[in-house]
Amino acid sequence: MEMVKVGIVGVTGYGGGELARLLSCHPQAAFTYAASGTYAGQPLHAALPGLRGTGLTCEAFDAAVCADKCDLVFLAGEAGLAMQAAPLLLEQDKLVVDLSADFRLKSPSEYETWYDKPHTAPQLLDEAAYGLPELNKDKITRARLVANPGCHVTAAVLALAPLVQAMAIDPATIIIDSLSGVSGAGRAKFGLDYHFSEVNESMRPYGVGGVHRHTPEIEQSLSQLAGANVTVTFTPHLVPITRGILTTAYANLAEPNQGAQDALARLHDLYTEFYQDAPFVFVLDAGQFPATKHVQGTNNCHIGIAVDGRTNRVVVVSAIDNLGKGAAGQAVQNMNLMLGLPETMGLTGGAVWP
Amino acid sequence: MEMVKVGIVGVTGYGGGELARLLSCHPQAAFTYAASGTYAGQPLHAALPGLRGTGLTCEAFDAAVCADKCDLVFLAGEAGLAMQAAPLLLEQDKLVVDLSADFRLKSPSEYETWYDKPHTAPQLLDEAAYGLPELNKDKITRARLVANPGCHVTAAVLALAPLVQAMAIDPATIIIDSLSGVSGAGRAKFGLDYHFSEVNESMRPYGVGGVHRHTPEIEQSLSQLAGANVTVTFTPHLVPITRGILTTAYANLAEPNQGAQDALARLHDLYTEFYQDAPFVFVLDAGQFPATKHVQGTNNCHIGIAVDGRTNRVVVVSAIDNLGKGAAGQAVQNMNLMLGLPETMGLTGGAVWP
Amino acid sequence: MEMVKVGIVGVTGYGGGELARLLSCHPQAAFTYAASGTYAGQPLHAALPGLRGTGLTCEAFDAAVCADKCDLVFLAGEAGLAMQAAPLLLEQDKLVVDLSADFRLKSPSEYETWYDKPHTAPQLLDEAAYGLPELNKDKITRARLVANPGCHVTAAVLALAPLVQAMAIDPATIIIDSLSGVSGAGRAKFGLDYHFSEVNESMRPYGVGGVHRHTPEIEQSLSQLAGANVTVTFTPHLVPITRGILTTAYANLAEPNQGAQDALARLHDLYTEFYQDAPFVFVLDAGQFPATKHVQGTNNCHIGIAVDGRTNRVVVVSAIDNLGKGAAGQAVQNMNLMLGLPETMGLTGGAVWP
Amino acid sequence: MEMVKVGIVGVTGYGGGELARLLSCHPQAAFTYAASGTYAGQPLHAALPGLRGTGLTCEAFDAAVCADKCDLVFLAGEAGLAMQAAPLLLEQDKLVVDLSADFRLKSPSEYETWYDKPHTAPQLLDEAAYGLPELNKDKITRARLVANPGCHVTAAVLALAPLVQAMAIDPATIIIDSLSGVSGAGRAKFGLDYHFSEVNESMRPYGVGGVHRHTPEIEQSLSQLAGANVTVTFTPHLVPITRGILTTAYANLAEPNQGAQDALARLHDLYTEFYQDAPFVFVLDAGQFPATKHVQGTNNCHIGIAVDGRTNRVVVVSAIDNLGKGAAGQAVQNMNLMLGLPETMGLTGGAVWP
Repeated sequence: MEMVKVGIVGVTGYGGGELARLLSCHPQAAFTYAASGTYAGQPLHAALPGLRGTGLTCEAFDAAVCADKCDLVFLAGEAGLAMQAAPLLLEQDKLVVDLSADFRLKSPSEYETWYDKPHTAPQLLDEAAYGLPELNKDKITRARLVANPGCHVTAAVLALAPLVQAMAIDPATIIIDSLSGVSGAGRAKFGLDYHFSEVNESMRPYGVGGVHRHTPEIEQSLSQLAGANVTVTFTPHLVPITRGILTTAYANLAEPNQGAQDALARLHDLYTEFYQDAPFVFVLDAGQFPATKHVQGTNNCHIGIAVDGRTNRVVVVSAIDNLGKGAAGQAVQNMNLMLGLPETMGLTGGAVWP
Repeated sequence: MEMVKVGIVGVTGYGGGELARLLSCHPQAAFTYAASGTYAGQPLHAALPGLRGTGLTCEAFDAAVCADKCDLVFLAGEAGLAMQAAPLLLEQDKLVVDLSADFRLKSPSEYETWYDKPHTAPQLLDEAAYGLPELNKDKITRARLVANPGCHVTAAVLALAPLVQAMAIDPATIIIDSLSGVSGAGRAKFGLDYHFSEVNESMRPYGVGGVHRHTPEIEQSLSQLAGANVTVTFTPHLVPITRGILTTAYANLAEPNQGAQDALARLHDLYTEFYQDAPFVFVLDAGQFPATKHVQGTNNCHIGIAVDGRTNRVVVVSAIDNLGKGAAGQAVQNMNLMLGLPETMGLTGGAVWP
Repeated sequence: MEMVKVGIVGVTGYGGGELARLLSCHPQAAFTYAASGTYAGQPLHAALPGLRGTGLTCEAFDAAVCADKCDLVFLAGEAGLAMQAAPLLLEQDKLVVDLSADFRLKSPSEYETWYDKPHTAPQLLDEAAYGLPELNKDKITRARLVANPGCHVTAAVLALAPLVQAMAIDPATIIIDSLSGVSGAGRAKFGLDYHFSEVNESMRPYGVGGVHRHTPEIEQSLSQLAGANVTVTFTPHLVPITRGILTTAYANLAEPNQGAQDALARLHDLYTEFYQDAPFVFVLDAGQFPATKHVQGTNNCHIGIAVDGRTNRVVVVSAIDNLGKGAAGQAVQNMNLMLGLPETMGLTGGAVWP
Repeated sequence: MEMVKVGIVGVTGYGGGELARLLSCHPQAAFTYAASGTYAGQPLHAALPGLRGTGLTCEAFDAAVCADKCDLVFLAGEAGLAMQAAPLLLEQDKLVVDLSADFRLKSPSEYETWYDKPHTAPQLLDEAAYGLPELNKDKITRARLVANPGCHVTAAVLALAPLVQAMAIDPATIIIDSLSGVSGAGRAKFGLDYHFSEVNESMRPYGVGGVHRHTPEIEQSLSQLAGANVTVTFTPHLVPITRGILTTAYANLAEPNQGAQDALARLHDLYTEFYQDAPFVFVLDAGQFPATKHVQGTNNCHIGIAVDGRTNRVVVVSAIDNLGKGAAGQAVQNMNLMLGLPETMGLTGGAVWP
């Protein structure tokens, strides 16, 4: 098979940089186009000093040039870019994977509610495949445009999907507590909030009280699985590490309390079966729980399950790399599916550990 | 007033070391006795290299010598030491503040259930004052023996006490998600679990499923406040920072949903009133949330409150220093109360920041 | 003695914040004035969330107001502020401790060479006492204006002073390699260079090749001690911790090689004697070396000495807290001397450890 | 070409784990044998939780079994293992890459001096190729046994080799100051020294005074390049990051001072030429200096050069990943050469960044 020409728009952010790392090693992708407003005209390694030898120079995004140089384009720029760029690229018969939030929510009015501006390409919202392959592989495989999920969303939905689909929990009791490394805030946000000395050796919540934009996205996926509206309480926290998301999800079990051990065994079977064809999701043995370091640099998701017999609740913990399965890794997984390549191609490496 | 002679048993752990730091600067305490099994015979600064100039030498704990040299003794050693040592010191009319778990649970059978061994001084359990001054100041003031609370417990109970006492929430819906710095695991536990390269840049839960020993202690305090049995789901997590606990607590509001803003205003008043005489608890303005760095090295607790109007839940976030308000700071606060000193003496410094 | 009214100009930077923490606990200082351009009109804890209860509000700096409210003023603002403010405050008979570089170099032309602008108060350069009390206590005691040394400078000069004064080394061979925590870069410098994700888990040099501004300041002090021009090679490095400077200094021994053990014993005596009246400098036992965590939050300097018998070189390692002995702690030490107070007042706490 | 069967002895340490990660993705290596004393009988992912899907089970090392299953063996166990194992494997016509120090020093007496025990396979010392391909590619290509260099040694020798070979410096003035992440201390050393809370937010030197075992190894390589005995002062430091070595090397220029800019230009040419055939060494542009994060997870070495015109010294800074070019990456590079594969095979990925 001929190499597929791929480009990255917004290559110099953290998601774009991780994409560049992954694509540089991908057996079927030729990384041929790198767009960045900030670094236009400079060699790629001026922005990504850990990536030398690509020979690429950053250029300002131009849809025509991009379409000319690429078969498939990753949009990893600021919010709002994709609403502008995707229609132009699709017109040129290009495939598009969008890492921003522009095409994640199916309802334009919900988009406007949460993102404070009207959607300018609502005609594409139905067509866009929501890029969580563990739930949506068929549609992704046939898609021209894929909306890559949010990082907290990926961790939360993978943690809860088997429970919600099987109606094993009361969906009205879902609480999602999630911890994120600082790279999730992106590279462009300067200011005291992400200044090293302010963040280091500290922990704090953000978006408390159901106001974080990943909330409707989590609810959209869980509602589809439940076949009914699901509303959740979601609280993200900032932790002073660079990469990683650890999500702890809580819900009341639907069945009356019949002993934690039995319940756990049944749930473990449920998860194992649900993810039997998901090469990147690892359901840990009972009593084992994930650590983000075990998925660092990978597209993997580790999931551990516990039942609190005293309260008849299930506690599910999932770990991903926010730049891997939470962004660039998942984007490459989506690309593989769109191109008919093996789902795991270029994504099989173990964790960068310790 | 004459200086009170104080000693620390288990001085070379992290809790003991922080006590030594605080007592060395306390205006009414003379730090006169330092016991450590590991460092017996060595100068104190061999164990605590950041504390020079005390002139103290570590000695193996001997109750008679300790009683001879001290008016008040802090027991900061391994679990089980206090059950042995406290009776001996009380017999000699000494005051005792125990930082271990030995006297926290009021029921000897509950102790045995959670700590896997019988309690050897059950006759003292009733007498021991539970050392959370914000809830129990009177009893502490009159006590000979104070049981200093667990670190997660302090953060969780301070976050939830106003809600539970006022019956503002449904106590059956409480979920407590808590993050701890690594010093909470102590100095003596060697092994891969706390090896730098394994812990650094990673996050993981522990004691998942309601099995952590701070669970019954949280429930004991909340049950007293509620006047009824309260059961909670509590999940601690390990985060790669040295000091700090950040607790996020969730519960359904008791009142039907009447708008998040009104509910928040009422709750803010509730907290402000509840803590009006608590010099170390700061209820943040609406919309503000705590960060552990803001309490680093202090005995303070910062609390932020949010109402999730979509789910009618309250989310309370509290931050403490696990070695401060979560251990040594609170122990000194208890000492002050036991001695009739101003509650804040020796504890007024601001955070070591950044 | 009446409390001395003190103010801080530039209170919301890291040096200013640490000063605020120290002064809030100082037995003879009343912290009465807090100036900040950025936070003018806001309560002090809006800028310093770890410091509550001062009741102070930040105000824009005004020399007349400042002079009215203070007996002694710490200038902790941006470079260039002190050249403007100090003359005005001295005219009003105020004492001034300047934490910036404005009055450190004695030669106005050298100032212009290294700081790229003319000095606007050269008439004060002679009068200003260089605020390294271990070398210059008498002049500080009598001074109206003290120039608080640079952080790397303090660590480097304390490491080398005994050797240079005793001519125990060949001063032409001095190499100073120094590591700094990130708070040394200040709070105001935003940008990728100090963004958490760029700095965390990385190490890099800066100011390589003798171009860092602390170089002439180190040389000025060492030249005075040597009674001759001393030129050094100095390389600072950025390390992802918040606080701390670790300096490793190298020089050829002046005496021919007579065995490392003998040489070390003689040097250890030399250091011990040199620092016998320096309450904040601790010369470690032979074979012991400092760690920055052992001085965190203090005004202490720990020094370890080794002799490399194979090359006949001495290697001296010193550790300070860049915000303590490297900035605010030393400024308070200087204040104590200027006011005739005990040198250690308000500075006796042990390290915040671990 | 058929896949080469490779095994790792000591697979569960940090060097072994990184080897396992690299070999799992290597296009020509089949990772078929994993030996570990500690984890014998357990699946590989019990020890390396970030590496799932190999299907391998750890087994206790047995030379016969190992020889049966492998064509090439990496010895990554404790010091002393390789002296025992290598002769047995070579007898079976296996290729061996030893990551320990056993075969690095050419002189058995020097080995005994620095490692405190006699060498038990001195007959192999001459034959063993020192595995720094940038200096020794031909011998490695023909070798049966390669001694993989120490991590600090790799960074130091790559920084200094061009200068020493060209006699551009006075070799008697070399000072090497090196910073290491904590994974360099290995996984097996438990104890307070590497306990998270002791190491985190601290910096300290170790092996001060020319006593670290990497000293003779550095000198051996530099002496070969110089054609004369070179003695250096080398000081390593521990920095609280997981991976990375940053080495700053100093020396007096041999030529009289003729201006920093000219000297720098000549040196830059020297380095560029010296490393023109070294695919993993990147000589940065003048004025640029390396950061360890830019080589994290790679086999690359970044080098920056400065001339201090005031002292006529050169300052060279090199950065590697201690587990990459400092251990496992270089071992794979050596394997590639021994097998006649392209030198960069399996090692072309960019840095895991940020």
